[in-house]
Amino acid sequence: MTINSLIENLSVRSKISVARIITLIENNNSADLTELQNHIFRKTGNAYRIGITGPPGAGKSTITNQLTKIFRSQKKSVGIIAVDPTSPFTGGALLGDRIRMSEIGTDELVLIRSMASRGSLGGLSKKAAEAGDVLDAAGYDFVIFETVGVGQSELDIAKTADTTVVCLVPESGDSIQAMKAGLMEIADVFVLNKSDRPGADSAFTSLKSMTHLKFRDPSSWTPEIVKTTASMNIGITELVDVIQNHRDYLVSTDLLNKNRSKHFISRIEEIIISKFSQELWRKSTKEYLLANIYQVTEGKKSPYELADEIYRIFNS
Amino acid sequence: MTINSLIENLSVRSKISVARIITLIENNNSADLTELQNHIFRKTGNAYRIGITGPPGAGKSTITNQLTKIFRSQKKSVGIIAVDPTSPFTGGALLGDRIRMSEIGTDELVLIRSMASRGSLGGLSKKAAEAGDVLDAAGYDFVIFETVGVGQSELDIAKTADTTVVCLVPESGDSIQAMKAGLMEIADVFVLNKSDRPGADSAFTSLKSMTHLKFRDPSSWTPEIVKTTASMNIGITELVDVIQNHRDYLVSTDLLNKNRSKHFISRIEEIIISKFSQELWRKSTKEYLLANIYQVTEGKKSPYELADEIYRIFNS
Repeated sequence: MTINSLIENLSVRSKISVARIITLIENNNSADLTELQNHIFRKTGNAYRIGITGPPGAGKSTITNQLTKIFRSQKKSVGIIAVDPTSPFTGGALLGDRIRMSEIGTDELVLIRSMASRGSLGGLSKKAAEAGDVLDAAGYDFVIFETVGVGQSELDIAKTADTTVVCLVPESGDSIQAMKAGLMEIADVFVLNKSDRPGADSAFTSLKSMTHLKFRDPSSWTPEIVKTTASMNIGITELVDVIQNHRDYLVSTDLLNKNRSKHFISRIEEIIISKFSQELWRKSTKEYLLANIYQVTEGKKSPYELADEIYRIFNS
Repeated sequence: MTINSLIENLSVRSKISVARIITLIENNNSADLTELQNHIFRKTGNAYRIGITGPPGAGKSTITNQLTKIFRSQKKSVGIIAVDPTSPFTGGALLGDRIRMSEIGTDELVLIRSMASRGSLGGLSKKAAEAGDVLDAAGYDFVIFETVGVGQSELDIAKTADTTVVCLVPESGDSIQAMKAGLMEIADVFVLNKSDRPGADSAFTSLKSMTHLKFRDPSSWTPEIVKTTASMNIGITELVDVIQNHRDYLVSTDLLNKNRSKHFISRIEEIIISKFSQELWRKSTKEYLLANIYQVTEGKKSPYELADEIYRIFNS
C-alpha cells in the first residue's frame, strides 16, 4: 500500500490502514514519515483522550474493556493504545490483547493496539502520542491509553491524556501509600477497583482524604473517586459519568485547550531532542568517539570531558 | 561544606559526604558540578557493579540485603542505589529504606541510597550511574543498583551493571512468560526466589530451557539460575558464587572492559543529549515557541513543523 492510499483508507477508518501506519511510526525514526505525520496531525483534535494507569494487577485491562463497552452502547468508536513494558521479542500482539480481542476487538468500531515499551530508547511517550494521533485522525471518538503505573515513560503517557484515570485496589495496602504519592499528581479520577474485597471502605476513606490535600493548583479539579468491581461490571457507568464531569469541567474552564497546548509543548521538545539524537552521530563525531573512548575506560578523561569535546565537534 | 571538603571526605568514605554529593548531582542539571564529577570519575573503576531487577514482589530488597550481609562477612564494603519509581513527594528516604536501614544500614561499611525515578525527565539512568560513580570513588567494593524491572529507564540502569541479576518467583506463572522476554536479554544471572513455593521446579525447568535459546552472541555467557528463599537466607551463598563465576568470565574474556566501554558510550551520548536539552530553550527559541504554539493547538501547523522551525532557529 502506498502512503497515499494509507491516508485515503485512514479517513474511512480502515483497521488495516490504521495498524500499518502505527507500525510505520513505531519502526521508523527517520524523517521519511514527516509528511505523513503532518497530514495525519491536521485531522486530529476531535478524539477525547483518556489515560488509564495503576499498579500491575489493579484491573486496568478489565476497566478499559468495560468502559469501551459502555462507549460502544453510546454509539461511540474507541481506539485503545495498550503500552506493555514487557512485550516479547517479536513486538507483535500480546497475550492480553488476544484475550481482549475476542471480547471487544471484533467490534468494527473498536481498535486495540499494543505498543512495547522495551527498546523504545526513551521515545515511548512520543510514539504513543503519535499512535494516538493516528486513531484520532481516523475518527475514533475516544482514544484510551492504557499503561502500567510504574516507570517514568509509562506515567508520562497516561498523564498527557485529557482525563487521567488511576486504578487502585483495596489490598494495595502499604503499597497504596507509596503509589499514591507518585500517582496523586496525575490523577483526575481514581478508580478503587475490586471494591467488593475487604478493606475497600478504609482504602476509600484514606484515598478521599488524600484527594483533598490538593497537590496541584488550589483552585483546580479535586480528583473524584469511583468504587468499581470491573469484573462484574459494577461502578463502570459511574466511572463514565465522572469522566464526563471532568470533561465538562475542562471545557467550561478552557483547560482542555490549555492542557493540550502544554502537552504539545512537551511533545515539540521531545521531537526536537529526538531530531538532535538522530543527527548527533555523523562521521566526525563517531570517529572522534571511537578514537578517544579508551581514555575514558582508562580513567584519563571523564565521560563529561569527552562528551563536551564531541558536542563541540558537532556544533563546529 | 565546600566542594573541596566534600571531595576530601569522600576519600575517607564519609557517609555524609557521599550523601551530600549524590544530592547535589540529583538536584543539579547545570554544568556547575562538572569539575566535581570529573574529579570523582578519576577515582572510579575499582567497584564491581551489580544490577538487581525483576517484577514487583519478587523479593529484590531481601536478596540485596542478604547479598550485602555475605559481602560484609567477606570484609567487603557495599553501596546500594535503590531506584524507586513511586517515591513520595519529599524525595527523601523511602519506607523500604527505613526498614532496611535498621538491618544493614547501621553498618559503617554499608551505604543505602534511594533515588526517585519520578520527575527525573528521562535522566534517571544518567543520575543513577553518576551516583554509582560517587560510591565507586568513595571506595565501596560493590555497588548494587536495585530497580524494579518494569519501565525502560529502570531496566536501563540494571543492564549497565557488570553483572545483572534478574529476580523472578515461581507463581509469576504466565507473567513469567511475558517478563522473561523483556528480561532475558539483560540477565547474566537469574534468581528464582521463593523457591519453597509450589511450581518452583517447573518454573526452574522452563527458565532453564529459555536460557539455552541464547538471545545474545552464541559464544556468550549462558545465564545461570539460582534457586533462593531469600527470606530464610537459602541459596544466597550460591548466588554470590555465581556472581563471582560471571565476574571471572568477564575478566578472563576481557569483556569486563569491553562492556564498560560500551556503557561509557551510552553514557556519553546521554550526557551530550542532556547538554543539548539544557541549551535548547534560550530566549530566541522560547519566544518563537510561545508565539507560535497556537498554530499547533488550532491544527494549522503540526508539532513536527514547529519543532523543525525551532531546531533551525537553535542552530542558526
